[in-house]
Parts: sequence; C-alpha cells; structure tokens
Amino acid sequence: MNDPEYRAGIVDLLGALGVGELTAFQRLAADAEMAPTLGDQAALAGMAVAEFHHFERIRDRLAELGVSIDEAMEPFHDAYVSFHAKTTPSNWLEGLVKAYVGDQIATDFYREIAVAVDDGTRALVTEVLADSGHADFVIDRVRSAIAEDPSVSGRLALWGRRLVGEALAQAQRVAADRDALAAIIVGGKGRPGMDLAELGRVFARLTEGHSKRMSTLGLAS
Amino acid sequence: MNDPEYRAGIVDLLGALGVGELTAFQRLAADAEMAPTLGDQAALAGMAVAEFHHFERIRDRLAELGVSIDEAMEPFHDAYVSFHAKTTPSNWLEGLVKAYVGDQIATDFYREIAVAVDDGTRALVTEVLADSGHADFVIDRVRSAIAEDPSVSGRLALWGRRLVGEALAQAQRVAADRDALAAIIVGGKGRPGMDLAELGRVFARLTEGHSKRMSTLGLAS
Repeated sequence: MNDPEYRAGIVDLLGALGVGELTAFQRLAADAEMAPTLGDQAALAGMAVAEFHHFERIRDRLAELGVSIDEAMEPFHDAYVSFHAKTTPSNWLEGLVKAYVGDQIATDFYREIAVAVDDGTRALVTEVLADSGHADFVIDRVRSAIAEDPSVSGRLALWGRRLVGEALAQAQRVAADRDALAAIIVGGKGRPGMDLAELGRVFARLTEGHSKRMSTLGLAS
Repeated sequence: MNDPEYRAGIVDLLGALGVGELTAFQRLAADAEMAPTLGDQAALAGMAVAEFHHFERIRDRLAELGVSIDEAMEPFHDAYVSFHAKTTPSNWLEGLVKAYVGDQIATDFYREIAVAVDDGTRALVTEVLADSGHADFVIDRVRSAIAEDPSVSGRLALWGRRLVGEALAQAQRVAADRDALAAIIVGGKGRPGMDLAELGRVFARLTEGHSKRMSTLGLAS
C-alpha cells in the first residue's frame, strides 16, 4: 500500500466493487416487486440484502484505508447506472436471469482482477463475491418456467446475450477511463501484471463461464 | 397457544407484521434511488435491510408455529400495497419523512397490540420493532433541508398528515376484516382485552406520538 499508484488502483477496485454491490442491491430490490408470490419476493429481497452486506464490508475496508466510499464509488457510478438503465428487466423471469447471470459475470471478472492484488485485498474480494446460495433458487425457477412454456427460452437467451454485451461494454469503458485500475490489471513499475495474451484468456474464460451458466439455466448462449 | 382462536390471532399478528416489514423493505429500497448522494442512498438502503432482517425473524417464528409466512401474510398484503400505492413519495424528502413517520407509527401500533399477547410473542414483536438507529439520520436530513429552504415545511407537513390518515384507514380496514386479529386486541373467551375506552386511548396515544415526531422533524402536525 506504500506505492501511491497501487493504492489508487486498490481504492478504484474497491470503489467499483462497492458501487456494483450497492446498485445490485437497488436493482434486485426493485425487481423483487415483480415476483409472482410473496415467497419469491422475499427470496429476491434476500439476494438484495446479501449484496448490501457485501457493500458494508467494502465500505469498512475503505474507511480503514482512510477513504470515504462515496468518493471511491463516484467514478464508477455512471457505468453501473447505464448498465442497469439499459438492462431493466421487463418481467420476473428476466429479472431472475439478470440477477444470476449479471452477478456471476461480475464475480468472475473481479476474481480475475483479484489475482493481481495483495493477500488482504484478495481475501476481502473473495469474501464479498462468495456465492450467497441463491443461484439454486434462480436455476430452479427459470428451468420450471421453460418446462411450462418452452417459448420463453428464446427470448431469455437473447436477454442473456444482451446482459453480457452491456456488461463487457461498461467494463471496457471503465478500464479505459481509469488508469490506476488498469495498472492493477496490467502491472506497473516493479509489479508484474497480465500481458495481452493473458488478458485475452481472461475474456475467453469470462465468456466461457457465461455460456456454462446459460446452459445450466436451459438457455442457448 | 392451545386456544385455536388465540393462535389464529397470533398468526395474523405475525403475518401483518411480516408483510409490513417486507413491503417497508421494498419501499425504502425503491426510495433510496432518489437519494442526492451515494452516502444517503446507502443509508436508506441500510434502513431497508434492517426491515428485511426483522422480516426473517418473523418468518422463523411462524415456521416454528408450523405456518408458512406466505400464507400468514396473504390476508394483509393488499392493505399494505394500497397504503404504499397511495403514499408513493415524489421526492427524496417525502421518502425520508415516510420512512420515519410511517415506521414509527407502525411501531407504536404493534407495541400497543403486543401488550395483550403472551411473553414470547411480545419479546419477538419488541425485538423486530426496536429502533434500527436510523431515525437520527432522517431527522438531521429533514431539519437541514427545512433550514435551507423553509418553504418545504408546509408541503412536508401536509404529506405527514396524509401518511397518518392512510395508515389509520388501512389499519381499520384490516381490523374490520380479521376477526381473529381483532379478538387479540379486544379479548376473547377467558382472555381479557381492551374495552372501547382503552381503544380510544390507544388511538389518542398513536396520534400524540405522531405529532411529537412531526415536531421533532420541524413540521406542524
């Protein structure tokens, strides 16, 4: 943490993760209102609450570093707001697919970045990205809906492609804007990072993980 | 819990409280999006999350009684949905006033009812209604806003009156519909309850508490 460029990168990483958790909370909570039953509503609300507790952990870590989370999140706020504005689910199933697919691709992305950071930061990132055990709920609901009406699968598959496309577009925009964050990934003075070939493999892994999850849901990717 | 009428009343009480917490979660989470800063957004989201954890405690207690929370909440869902539909805040300050005033009047109401129930149920009700420590946040924000622009206080005072009016209208509707819940309040075979004079005093206390809170906010009631 003594290298100011590295420290700025970690603050960026935590800020981006924090605003991701906070906006995920907002969207999941809003999407919960579309639930067909009160039980389903409570389940999605529970997913939202898990994201909020992750947000709190990140806020506490930033406070330890002497940085207000508001300040750290600010540069990334627009990207997340744009992402959610462009991917507002129009029904309950779209909301579920987004909760699962969006959450998981963000998880994979931040885990790949976390390889390059110090042990303490990596432990925190891994902790806040731990599966909250709600994936099974989504998989069950989506598969049942497809079994009941196979025609929904085509629309949901398109929806999944749109989600991943928007997510990658916003990630690229952020990486291009934030030098300190990019330096965490590609390395800096005296710190090794990923070369282009490795970055290519990261993106290949992200896409592959996404495809696997789509097929777990019973959807073409 | 051996008296079936009493048991039905307790299930009603917990169901009404549960749907209250769950819908409060939904509304607070939605209102958080109107926050002027990310810090304020996180604060309101934190209030929402506290309500959700109360919901979980009630769900667990109902499960112990062998009742699904879905079933217990169902009869009260419409009243809460109507209340929130009729009192959707149109801006951040209205959202804050609603969060505070609405939450507190519900707290007072359920505490008054809890006087008439068994110790275990009363302990749970008291626990889930405990102040989550967010009142100070609301009071501070509302008072500052009035200090900055005194003209907002007239509109917010009207808003507070509308909130309490709608809350009492829905409470009366529920009490009229649900005999078992009403019997908890007014008593049943072998169980003393409140007489009409006492009920009158309860309502007087609710109104008085509301007036005090409005003046804490710097608003006429």
